[in-house]
Amino acid sequence: MFENRMPRYDILSEESMSVLDLGWRRIVSEIGVEFMSPWAVELLREAGQTVEDVNVKFDPEWILAQVAKVPSEFNLRARNPKNNVHIGGNSMVFGGVYGPPFVREGSVRRDATFNDFQNFCKLAQSFDALDSVGGVVCEPNDLSLDSRHLDMAFAAATLTDKFFMGNVVTAENARDVIHIAEILHGGRAAIEETPALISLINCNSPLRWDDRMLDSLREYVLAGQPVVVTPFLLMGAMSPVTIPATLAQQIAEALTGLALAQLVRPGAPVVFGSFLSNIDMQSGSPQFGTPESGIGLLCTGQIARHFKLPFRGGGGLNSSQTVDAQSAYQTMMTMMPTFLSGTNWVMHTAGWLEGGLVSSYDKFILDVEILQSLMAEFTPLEFNESSLAFDAHVEVGHGGHFLGAAHTMDRFRDCFYRPFLTNSDNYERWNRLGARDTRARAEEIWKKKLEDYVMPDMDPSTLLELSEFVAQRKSQLDS
Amino acid sequence: MFENRMPRYDILSEESMSVLDLGWRRIVSEIGVEFMSPWAVELLREAGQTVEDVNVKFDPEWILAQVAKVPSEFNLRARNPKNNVHIGGNSMVFGGVYGPPFVREGSVRRDATFNDFQNFCKLAQSFDALDSVGGVVCEPNDLSLDSRHLDMAFAAATLTDKFFMGNVVTAENARDVIHIAEILHGGRAAIEETPALISLINCNSPLRWDDRMLDSLREYVLAGQPVVVTPFLLMGAMSPVTIPATLAQQIAEALTGLALAQLVRPGAPVVFGSFLSNIDMQSGSPQFGTPESGIGLLCTGQIARHFKLPFRGGGGLNSSQTVDAQSAYQTMMTMMPTFLSGTNWVMHTAGWLEGGLVSSYDKFILDVEILQSLMAEFTPLEFNESSLAFDAHVEVGHGGHFLGAAHTMDRFRDCFYRPFLTNSDNYERWNRLGARDTRARAEEIWKKKLEDYVMPDMDPSTLLELSEFVAQRKSQLDS
Repeated sequence: MFENRMPRYDILSEESMSVLDLGWRRIVSEIGVEFMSPWAVELLREAGQTVEDVNVKFDPEWILAQVAKVPSEFNLRARNPKNNVHIGGNSMVFGGVYGPPFVREGSVRRDATFNDFQNFCKLAQSFDALDSVGGVVCEPNDLSLDSRHLDMAFAAATLTDKFFMGNVVTAENARDVIHIAEILHGGRAAIEETPALISLINCNSPLRWDDRMLDSLREYVLAGQPVVVTPFLLMGAMSPVTIPATLAQQIAEALTGLALAQLVRPGAPVVFGSFLSNIDMQSGSPQFGTPESGIGLLCTGQIARHFKLPFRGGGGLNSSQTVDAQSAYQTMMTMMPTFLSGTNWVMHTAGWLEGGLVSSYDKFILDVEILQSLMAEFTPLEFNESSLAFDAHVEVGHGGHFLGAAHTMDRFRDCFYRPFLTNSDNYERWNRLGARDTRARAEEIWKKKLEDYVMPDMDPSTLLELSEFVAQRKSQLDS
Repeated sequence: MFENRMPRYDILSEESMSVLDLGWRRIVSEIGVEFMSPWAVELLREAGQTVEDVNVKFDPEWILAQVAKVPSEFNLRARNPKNNVHIGGNSMVFGGVYGPPFVREGSVRRDATFNDFQNFCKLAQSFDALDSVGGVVCEPNDLSLDSRHLDMAFAAATLTDKFFMGNVVTAENARDVIHIAEILHGGRAAIEETPALISLINCNSPLRWDDRMLDSLREYVLAGQPVVVTPFLLMGAMSPVTIPATLAQQIAEALTGLALAQLVRPGAPVVFGSFLSNIDMQSGSPQFGTPESGIGLLCTGQIARHFKLPFRGGGGLNSSQTVDAQSAYQTMMTMMPTFLSGTNWVMHTAGWLEGGLVSSYDKFILDVEILQSLMAEFTPLEFNESSLAFDAHVEVGHGGHFLGAAHTMDRFRDCFYRPFLTNSDNYERWNRLGARDTRARAEEIWKKKLEDYVMPDMDPSTLLELSEFVAQRKSQLDS
């Protein structure tokens, strides 16, 4: 797990924070937020908030009292204890792309399948930089809609020994995945003590929490499993076209969602989520890796810290249709602020293409290279007598070179980040070896990684219990 | 000209700065720096420094007294006053790539020609985001080596109305270009009052200033034209493999160079230059856009501010052989720190490819898009009642959309950065229109820009004087 010990890049002044503070307070108290699950409305009514049908108007001070109950940091357990992670503080935890219905493999774009899902699990397992495959790394369109959550959880649980995300389609699905986590970790008490699943609860922005999301939230929170309460904001469509207005809305939505979670179970681990970009005002299409999304990410990180909440945002977002220059500069336009804002839980780190419609194998590799480079860049330097290397300067003197200096010889293996995709061959050599661009080299890498993949060990009795549960539930659901 | 009013991202603690301070003081006083021009050695001897043949050992306090004479900000005049710039403070000034002998045009890599040079002048003129073509945007290999500096200066002076850089091959060349600036700006007094040329003086690192560079420096400084005193540091070759050691060396080289400039003409405008990256320790090839170069850039900006000096660094550096994903992520890995450190004079902003061996037309367009995006990202937000847009939230309410809201209608034209290269068409449309990747789209853009190029006006008597001077000098030099 990566610890970001570099400074945060804070861009909001105290004055700006005060303006935002007024903004979200007016939204929650004067406009209110809709909750489409009756149990949620009832809980909020009992807690003294003003209910009008499904709309709830909040006392901002009550919200802040709920927010104060949220743990600012928590642990997540993985099947392999080496892969346990910490969410909050300086730690940054990275998972793969989430949700794409399509896959791109080289120049072919097609429906994603369960075989693709398994492949992405294997790739996530193959790179130490990734803490998790995430959740729905692609939709297994060839599987039954009613039971594919079981196949996905089984694949993530067996093909990786890292943590994975919960399913949020229905409360029943959530209970299934929680049961799988219980099997993996030795029962309910174990995962209540240290949670094993983290789940994405999206707002139907603006200002509405839908029933499936709320019902899933309740299941996970009751089981002590953290949820990421995430406004879904494409400015111009789901929020106003000004960033300050969008930030005020984001705070209103996130805080009301996590205040509800605290009513379900006080002290429940929750994460302040952000998914903030903008549409193209000409075409209406979503855009990612934009300057506005970069600014939004920097602001959101600072806002989450202001409320002492763990923070989710960022990732390798881009709108490109293929793994070209645009896919890379837009990804960097998001990933750099992801690090500058010290994002705690980073979804969509690897594989995101075409506005999130496509899981790309080539992009997955590109993203791991970018991730590892940024980890190296956000590692503080050591300034001391040894790193000053005065002796090297004495040894080399004027106009010479340091290639053979003793200081260089001692350190050449790990003095610089060693890329595995980036290529700096001279032109003649590069041309002789086939003039392969970054995408072509990425394809070679993921194919080799899949060939070399080794399945992590699992205790046979656990594997048996897991298999039986999945088989039994699938037969119930698909009959 | 762009003003960066966002915060600087400072990563050096006071302790780290103290370690560096000890480092450069030891280098200049115990090892010394070589000056290969006798006049320079003589000046430094007269100023009380310890001379041993060509090596000069310095009193660090004397260096700091010279540094204190450097103006922390200055203006540069352009032929069109609208294109005047300010170097220092919050301002960021951008010029094209400098030095490549080759050109890449689509998939063809070949020797650069004067026609290419003129094309890059036209492209620099065509984008407001660029303040200058720079200097040697590519080597015009088809022109005489002895007189091409005249052709290049003539092209930059007539095809653009922006400032351009001085030639630094010999003192004689420098005098020619200074005379061209005198013709353009109405005489010596005018350019001594407000300089018109800025010139790159590279150190032959480690710790040696070569005679051609020093002789060029003297010409420009005597004429009141600023120079960018730049250590040339590829860690592992020209400096040690640890960043702190390299930073100490960089300070030693830069400060000794600019202290000399202050002896030539006290108060002369000079810029603290940085060109800092690393080699690949396996192949020995230079690498750009690395995590180490990003860290180096952030540190160097802070160091320059510590000494109250204008700062040059960054740009669109990368090692890629083609305009692919790597070229883009490495460029962002450099350009983002360029903005985070508030770099005042940014060379190599557009067109850099293949470690600086190639000027690429396609990359030029890519880089302008990245530049403009970052300008948008580094523009502070306004937080006030109006940008909070409470009325828009009231109008749209719950679960609706903001596409038709009054607040959106008022602002849709300029609420977001409008890209000209980035494409977010849906897959079907993108495919129907030819499935063109970013590079292919960039090619279309620069070809159109060259077609649409309009030469800026020039007073006929100035043009005549300029043409006559260039013709006369060329006939002398080439005979």
